[in-house]
Amino acid sequence: MVSGYRYPFITFLSDYGLTDEFVGVCHGVMHRIAPQARIIDITHGIKPQNVPEGAAVLARSLPYMPKGVHLAVVDPGVGSGRLCLIVQAGDGSCLVGPDNGLLIPAASRLGGIASSCKIENRQLMAARPSRTFHGRDIFAPAAAHLALGVAPEEFGDEVAVSDLVTLTASAPRLHEGHLHAVVTHVDRFGNLQTNVSVNELAGIGLDLGSVIEVRVEGHCTLVPYRETFASVTVGEPVVIEDSYGLLSLAVNQGSAADRFQGSLGARIVLGPPGSSA
Amino acid sequence: MVSGYRYPFITFLSDYGLTDEFVGVCHGVMHRIAPQARIIDITHGIKPQNVPEGAAVLARSLPYMPKGVHLAVVDPGVGSGRLCLIVQAGDGSCLVGPDNGLLIPAASRLGGIASSCKIENRQLMAARPSRTFHGRDIFAPAAAHLALGVAPEEFGDEVAVSDLVTLTASAPRLHEGHLHAVVTHVDRFGNLQTNVSVNELAGIGLDLGSVIEVRVEGHCTLVPYRETFASVTVGEPVVIEDSYGLLSLAVNQGSAADRFQGSLGARIVLGPPGSSA
Amino acid sequence: MVSGYRYPFITFLSDYGLTDEFVGVCHGVMHRIAPQARIIDITHGIKPQNVPEGAAVLARSLPYMPKGVHLAVVDPGVGSGRLCLIVQAGDGSCLVGPDNGLLIPAASRLGGIASSCKIENRQLMAARPSRTFHGRDIFAPAAAHLALGVAPEEFGDEVAVSDLVTLTASAPRLHEGHLHAVVTHVDRFGNLQTNVSVNELAGIGLDLGSVIEVRVEGHCTLVPYRETFASVTVGEPVVIEDSYGLLSLAVNQGSAADRFQGSLGARIVLGPPGSSA
Repeated sequence: MVSGYRYPFITFLSDYGLTDEFVGVCHGVMHRIAPQARIIDITHGIKPQNVPEGAAVLARSLPYMPKGVHLAVVDPGVGSGRLCLIVQAGDGSCLVGPDNGLLIPAASRLGGIASSCKIENRQLMAARPSRTFHGRDIFAPAAAHLALGVAPEEFGDEVAVSDLVTLTASAPRLHEGHLHAVVTHVDRFGNLQTNVSVNELAGIGLDLGSVIEVRVEGHCTLVPYRETFASVTVGEPVVIEDSYGLLSLAVNQGSAADRFQGSLGARIVLGPPGSSA
Repeated sequence: MVSGYRYPFITFLSDYGLTDEFVGVCHGVMHRIAPQARIIDITHGIKPQNVPEGAAVLARSLPYMPKGVHLAVVDPGVGSGRLCLIVQAGDGSCLVGPDNGLLIPAASRLGGIASSCKIENRQLMAARPSRTFHGRDIFAPAAAHLALGVAPEEFGDEVAVSDLVTLTASAPRLHEGHLHAVVTHVDRFGNLQTNVSVNELAGIGLDLGSVIEVRVEGHCTLVPYRETFASVTVGEPVVIEDSYGLLSLAVNQGSAADRFQGSLGARIVLGPPGSSA
Repeated sequence: MVSGYRYPFITFLSDYGLTDEFVGVCHGVMHRIAPQARIIDITHGIKPQNVPEGAAVLARSLPYMPKGVHLAVVDPGVGSGRLCLIVQAGDGSCLVGPDNGLLIPAASRLGGIASSCKIENRQLMAARPSRTFHGRDIFAPAAAHLALGVAPEEFGDEVAVSDLVTLTASAPRLHEGHLHAVVTHVDRFGNLQTNVSVNELAGIGLDLGSVIEVRVEGHCTLVPYRETFASVTVGEPVVIEDSYGLLSLAVNQGSAADRFQGSLGARIVLGPPGSSA
């Protein structure tokens, strides 16, 4: 790269939205420190303060990003005692964000946590950090300094991996031949992503081509499991493997969220037809 | 350009929205292949799966873009048999997207279709393309490889122009001295853009300065045709020529969408005053 | 910078939103003129045609931006007689936008207005400027030419600072020991920003640690003034100093906008407990 930086790219994910100037101000702060850095906005549409959603989106996005510095801010504990972190992943990339579990699943996807340290060095922050906008005053400056080549250990003391805050993983529960799952994401098209993998579905005897009995918040429907939206007629529901290898409930050229009244966190049960009590 | 790329710029339009990570992931994929490419986001706010709207917005935006690769994804047929296309335009730019009519009006604005080919070469896609996210796995990689200088013919076989899917054009209908039009776009300010050009309005004897009888979904109002919003008092309706040469129904410092209850696709009839049956 | 431009960075704020292609088209126009310019989007979420909000957001964002050209468009008077302006600030940066007060508070934050001129030179605009989209046809081209190094005086005649349109400043009113303020901004998290500074609050005897009687549109609540959201239990209201030094009414991990039914422009009265008539 022309930049001569250690990391030419900084990726950025947050729950800041784009209506306010928060994201733009963080870009400005980073470019004042590292004018040549290239910033890739992953998304700023994480639901406000929803750390599990932010962690899941970060984990599935980073494998598609150039190696670099990955800045992520979903931070309900801003201004409290929670630590500000740099996590070095096994593949050589650096993650920057709060110590609330947000960074951990993503680091696992990038070769695991090689080491971790606090951001404490006031020389590498804004002159007078606010208590409510650490994205601007602590995290964005740290990301930019890392891009320039400042070593993680210059930011602060090491934190043992066992001391990092982690989130409780959400896996589907197997009960009497049914998978009790949750809707982990609803995208713009109204597709309901679940936490069920193709292998877990195979474990209860359902494969591509099967008809699945799907119960969403108690309402039961028979839905074919097919390769693609267009495998069913327009307006009909279908279960597909989504682009991340998870099962999604969709409607061809329509919205499963509308059809099934499903939203983030909704309970969804998958099983063979005719099996519900 | 410093990049030494064949096309330093890639523009990008889609219906992905910005709430999910889809757009960010496509940026990541392009920058992994072509780190120096400059990406310009035209908009990702096309209504989900609305190919005609995407085609219209792309066609009116590309004349303002640097010559380059133009990636566009509005793709209700993803995963079905529809082709993945590269269209070379007469001005030397390349359009990348699905074969559903999305790219054709824009190519016409850039000197017409010089040639067209399928994207079939697995070497120039993601390792295991998903069936539901061709933006990430097929179209974004193709756009990045084109920017680097890979020739279109390396992607796949030529497609005859006569075999490309096209959209039915929407032109206003002339009936008993009135123009029967539709609302083709509602912008953020509530302006109702129609498919009527200034010349078509002149054809029924109405010019700048005229008062026009405007019927929106059956309700009739007399509206002056003026040069600019500010030609009428605040809160009053006005017909103007918009920045693309089409007639728009607007309200000075207000919303015509609210005032006339008009939305995308609404029927709108324009004629001289006192002429409605 | 590699670019060799006078200003490598152009920042951009508007009320265009991201659903339409307006922002993308302005990016395209700037990159056709100045391919190497780096554009930072501050926000395009200013409420449509809300000049005071745009002016406030611009003023508090620019101190965090690299020195450069600052393009801002919130322009209800587009196409009327209002001037198109370049304002040079004391720190050497250039602001570009309409003469409606939008640029003035920001220029004050960047060292004051050094000089100001009209944009009149047709050679530095689109070939046939529209009457409704000066962002695309006049302001974006001007910003790009300034970045390249065209001198402000080449755009048009000087405008005396005393002739510039200004906004009426909004300061809180002191009445019988209470501060009568307004909500100047509601952010994505539902925080209600007021126009009251910490010093003004101290002037009525209230300091960090005090309990404040807060009346929002007539409804009265006692709210502690603390350092950070997390100083109160989850779901409880708190008054904090926000990241710009202004007082905000917030709810820890909740929305003050929902809790207090507060919106932009709502009246808010702050005073000591037990003091309301």
